[in-house]
Amino acid sequence: MSDLSQPQNPPVLLDKLQWRYATKKMDPAKTVPQDKIDRIVEAARLAPTSSGLQPFEVIVVKNPAVRAQIQAIAWNQAQVTESTCVLVFAAWDNYTAERINHMFDLTNQQRGFTNEGWEAYRQKLLAMYPPRPAEVNFEHAARQAYIGFGASVIAAAFEEVDATPMEGFDPAALDDILKLRERGLRSVTILPLGYRAADSDWLVNLKKVRRPLDQFVIEVN
Amino acid sequence: MSDLSQPQNPPVLLDKLQWRYATKKMDPAKTVPQDKIDRIVEAARLAPTSSGLQPFEVIVVKNPAVRAQIQAIAWNQAQVTESTCVLVFAAWDNYTAERINHMFDLTNQQRGFTNEGWEAYRQKLLAMYPPRPAEVNFEHAARQAYIGFGASVIAAAFEEVDATPMEGFDPAALDDILKLRERGLRSVTILPLGYRAADSDWLVNLKKVRRPLDQFVIEVN
Repeated sequence: MSDLSQPQNPPVLLDKLQWRYATKKMDPAKTVPQDKIDRIVEAARLAPTSSGLQPFEVIVVKNPAVRAQIQAIAWNQAQVTESTCVLVFAAWDNYTAERINHMFDLTNQQRGFTNEGWEAYRQKLLAMYPPRPAEVNFEHAARQAYIGFGASVIAAAFEEVDATPMEGFDPAALDDILKLRERGLRSVTILPLGYRAADSDWLVNLKKVRRPLDQFVIEVN
Repeated sequence: MSDLSQPQNPPVLLDKLQWRYATKKMDPAKTVPQDKIDRIVEAARLAPTSSGLQPFEVIVVKNPAVRAQIQAIAWNQAQVTESTCVLVFAAWDNYTAERINHMFDLTNQQRGFTNEGWEAYRQKLLAMYPPRPAEVNFEHAARQAYIGFGASVIAAAFEEVDATPMEGFDPAALDDILKLRERGLRSVTILPLGYRAADSDWLVNLKKVRRPLDQFVIEVN
């Protein structure tokens, strides 16, 4: 292991990860500019996913009444309404042939050609995914949504926007509020975006705790 | 939506996400320096997880013979051995009282005090997680591992290190090779780290394809 205390050149990403924390109290008087929200969503859109299928969508909820409904089914966590908006990460409820074909067709269209190997890969996924139980496919899609979710958390830190990664809500109730099942989506995580109320957030000055490296990394040399 | 083509100040993260791609051919003659590997792992260690439990570990496999074994159970993808090392992201097979208590105790120790609300939260998790089926807990832990996995993918881009996010392997076989089940771990993703062989990688010059924003984002204003 090298000395991580040495300055990274540039030390950008680890510094941002150290700066961020799960904000417990936000200041509703401060508003996140739209261009920052857009770049935080864009990070999720650019995030890698299995076979490039991007099996999730992001719902940007600004509407205060809708956010009040969400707060009620999210252990009453006030960041849901104290924030500027809430990003809802919702995974595909299933992998269908239509969804898979759409991404392969889009890729062919964008790249301007078809490729035999790529078409064989399409057939492989069509044979593998749609016959599986919807629940298995949803779990797979949910994992991909977490990659995008993590990318947005990191992007918020780069924008110096505070965020609270949340799983503490009733997904079925949220799906009802946003009518996600009708779109073939199921909510997996939510991410309020706003600015910390530093003088009333109990967590803001506490040490970030992570398991030490020797409890986190195994080396096979 | 604002104009994302306008330069970000600094435009760091989205540029890095645009730069990276799932490298298909690596140059085994080029070696990733240890300090870069360390920072890529550190990004995963600093990544947020549900309740801060960090329910996964990272195995850094450099050993060529072990990587040859892994390649054989990973659709023979050559990046596994052409890379400098392979990061294996392995989630906890279950949430146990011991694991939960360890993280809460570590937090109290690092912060130097105990807190009534935090202890109540410990009891809530102890009542909720260990009684659930191991498979439910593993799926939850696996999702957290994907946040760390995504953080490492992004960190590699910041280090200008190429990487290939992979799910295409036999997890049970990999668990056997690395004896992960004996450690209470189950592999979920792998990430070879190395340098692209640009003149023989079919993907390197192809356009990155993502669904357009109107197929990815829903606004609730």
